[in-house]
Amino acid sequence: MLESLKQDVLEANLQLTKHRLVTFTWGNVSGIDREHDLVVIKPSGVPYKELKINDLVVVDLEGTVVEGTLRPSSDTPTHLALYRAFTNVDAIVHTHSPWATSWAQAGRPIPALGTTHADYFYGEVPCTRPLTKEEIHRAYEVETGNVIIEAFEIGGIDPLSMPGVLVYGHAPFCWGKDANEAVHNAVVLEEIAKIALHTLQLNPKIEPIDQFLLDKHYLRKHGTNAYYGQN
Amino acid sequence: MLESLKQDVLEANLQLTKHRLVTFTWGNVSGIDREHDLVVIKPSGVPYKELKINDLVVVDLEGTVVEGTLRPSSDTPTHLALYRAFTNVDAIVHTHSPWATSWAQAGRPIPALGTTHADYFYGEVPCTRPLTKEEIHRAYEVETGNVIIEAFEIGGIDPLSMPGVLVYGHAPFCWGKDANEAVHNAVVLEEIAKIALHTLQLNPKIEPIDQFLLDKHYLRKHGTNAYYGQN
Amino acid sequence: MLESLKQDVLEANLQLTKHRLVTFTWGNVSGIDREHDLVVIKPSGVPYKELKINDLVVVDLEGTVVEGTLRPSSDTPTHLALYRAFTNVDAIVHTHSPWATSWAQAGRPIPALGTTHADYFYGEVPCTRPLTKEEIHRAYEVETGNVIIEAFEIGGIDPLSMPGVLVYGHAPFCWGKDANEAVHNAVVLEEIAKIALHTLQLNPKIEPIDQFLLDKHYLRKHGTNAYYGQN
Amino acid sequence: MLESLKQDVLEANLQLTKHRLVTFTWGNVSGIDREHDLVVIKPSGVPYKELKINDLVVVDLEGTVVEGTLRPSSDTPTHLALYRAFTNVDAIVHTHSPWATSWAQAGRPIPALGTTHADYFYGEVPCTRPLTKEEIHRAYEVETGNVIIEAFEIGGIDPLSMPGVLVYGHAPFCWGKDANEAVHNAVVLEEIAKIALHTLQLNPKIEPIDQFLLDKHYLRKHGTNAYYGQN
Repeated sequence: MLESLKQDVLEANLQLTKHRLVTFTWGNVSGIDREHDLVVIKPSGVPYKELKINDLVVVDLEGTVVEGTLRPSSDTPTHLALYRAFTNVDAIVHTHSPWATSWAQAGRPIPALGTTHADYFYGEVPCTRPLTKEEIHRAYEVETGNVIIEAFEIGGIDPLSMPGVLVYGHAPFCWGKDANEAVHNAVVLEEIAKIALHTLQLNPKIEPIDQFLLDKHYLRKHGTNAYYGQN
Repeated sequence: MLESLKQDVLEANLQLTKHRLVTFTWGNVSGIDREHDLVVIKPSGVPYKELKINDLVVVDLEGTVVEGTLRPSSDTPTHLALYRAFTNVDAIVHTHSPWATSWAQAGRPIPALGTTHADYFYGEVPCTRPLTKEEIHRAYEVETGNVIIEAFEIGGIDPLSMPGVLVYGHAPFCWGKDANEAVHNAVVLEEIAKIALHTLQLNPKIEPIDQFLLDKHYLRKHGTNAYYGQN
Repeated sequence: MLESLKQDVLEANLQLTKHRLVTFTWGNVSGIDREHDLVVIKPSGVPYKELKINDLVVVDLEGTVVEGTLRPSSDTPTHLALYRAFTNVDAIVHTHSPWATSWAQAGRPIPALGTTHADYFYGEVPCTRPLTKEEIHRAYEVETGNVIIEAFEIGGIDPLSMPGVLVYGHAPFCWGKDANEAVHNAVVLEEIAKIALHTLQLNPKIEPIDQFLLDKHYLRKHGTNAYYGQN
Repeated sequence: MLESLKQDVLEANLQLTKHRLVTFTWGNVSGIDREHDLVVIKPSGVPYKELKINDLVVVDLEGTVVEGTLRPSSDTPTHLALYRAFTNVDAIVHTHSPWATSWAQAGRPIPALGTTHADYFYGEVPCTRPLTKEEIHRAYEVETGNVIIEAFEIGGIDPLSMPGVLVYGHAPFCWGKDANEAVHNAVVLEEIAKIALHTLQLNPKIEPIDQFLLDKHYLRKHGTNAYYGQN
């Protein structure tokens, strides 16, 4: 079942190593079939170079395994919480990519310091609050999803125009309309995290770019008046 | 038409990935035939590994497509503005290479802190002023070219001896007498941007090198008394 | 003798270069057969690409060479001191990996600033005190082991849940239940050392993560209630 | 003539790119035949991938070309000055490797902050004074050699135990008993320059390692009582 989605999710998982976003097994990609509300996700702890299409696990939105013999990623409940809340998101990627993780560990959102950022992320990339002791004991991975959702609700942020987030003290999650786009956004997040850190080292007082420059760059790539690329 | 120029521009675009100056499609190279005032440029948003010689687009200096079925780079108007103003420049490259972009985002020119810099850039690499809201709304890409030209006019800078610039909040543009040299300069700019940042971390009070050392290094590689290399 | 252990130690030594943990010959891996109290270790100064299984040296816990024609690593007495004191440790790796070495040279333990750290190291990675002149003159390599052991005793640290240490002014040592795991931990230490430095650059006042988050991450990967991976 | 020396110098030049010490043609290696006082050196501006053994140039200690059709490296007079003054040095390498160049541009010697440094450089790696306008105008490359020699004379430094130097505002020179060792030292210098910068970022007040630790590490690798390696 879901052979095409599985193929996309497999290839996206393998892209993580190609783009050097992961060390060992520190990352996972999932994709959802919205018609059947079924999610395909990487199995837990399986090295990328050994990963086969039939190793992928299919779960429903409550986390019940529908197909597959391996245990799904331990982060599966986070993915599912996001799919339930962000109904326009069809693929999710989690990594510990080092530059974005540095911002997450610092507990700082990544300000929009340039047009590279603005081409993909329509404003500051948010950082969640820390989880409480109670949340961690109750259901750690679900609550990780919940603090992400909370950050977007409180900030009035649209997941479609802000396809990534930093989990405080942890690492980034990114998403997109398909697995390839989710990984693409994870690569971009890592790159802008690196550039932003060096920008601040060169000019600690630099302010985010003007709103009209942010608008210009984001909207020339996204939305009905986009004119970047061939479509 | 322009087969030789197209070949040069194609190879130079492919060099961008080889030298790790670009992520995804974040860069483009163009070259001009000054006899016919025709510019060959990369199409917008096409991945480098899929790029074929016939994908390149030929435009005139006003931006009218003369040959090619794909849409030219969205940065084409910036290239054309520079070709119109800098009549000795025959090839232009734009990237978001991360170290140079960090300086652009910080809004800081790169001071000439060493002889590596002096071998290619005859003084501080300038950074433009930010674009105004009006400029961005009116004709963003053309005005990006115009603030570069303004920076060179105000600074009394010769584009021949300063083959690169940082656009404030955006990224670098470089150029040269042909596409290969333009990419060469983009590689150098990235390298000196990296070294300059680390230099300032080691010694925040360091001053640019003496003018006579800058002269010595630049002029042993450039101009009529050059004695570096085999020519 | 010890062919299987030798094979593991050989492969682990070769992994050091694959994971870019070593420059030239700056690293070594050993493994112990606890039944016979015999240690297999890399010979001193032999380049990794020339290293053959029969080059490995077998020594007893007092350092007497039992098999092999080459001189064992000059760090052998450090390995042996650790094997004698840490009886649950069955493999040891020493490198001068650059990020971890930066912390060692700075004389700073690596605080647990995120979950990546918590997944492997159950708390702050300790840094030893400097060796005294007398210790260095008496038996430098043995005393290097002794200050490591002292740091664990004074800190009340369990080597099983803290599989690595920084030697002041020198570099890291890591260990594990086998040679592969020891190298795995050395890779992780290098990664978290890098991320921690950048975290502190972004937020010099950041505190270690909460104890309950540290517990959660460490214990979901280790111990009887672990639920990460397929076992 | 000097076929064996040429082969060594050729291979050492090619090692520069393999170890990522050079961008484009920014580096050169030479070696001397002390019996005939003849120096083999890379030709100026020739890309490494095109470099052939017969492209190497043979010059005498005054710089007269004895064999070869290409122009020798523009840095040849610096090499020759060092060969004349440092009579135990038989090979020299010059690069603009980025971390060491950052220290040179910052005008700071590299303090001995750890044992990695102590294994190869017996103390602080010196940085020359800036050249004066008169020196640069008179004979830039010769005077570059002279300020190196001056730094060693004033500091009472032995080139044998300090096989490298930073030229103020420029870049490093390293040397050794043969071309391979000179490149080896250049690789080490780059590595310790990187680690030292990060060490200072983690602990700006860190002092150089104790003299007795410096002695121990340097002398276990060098001199009559060395016990590292197989010889």
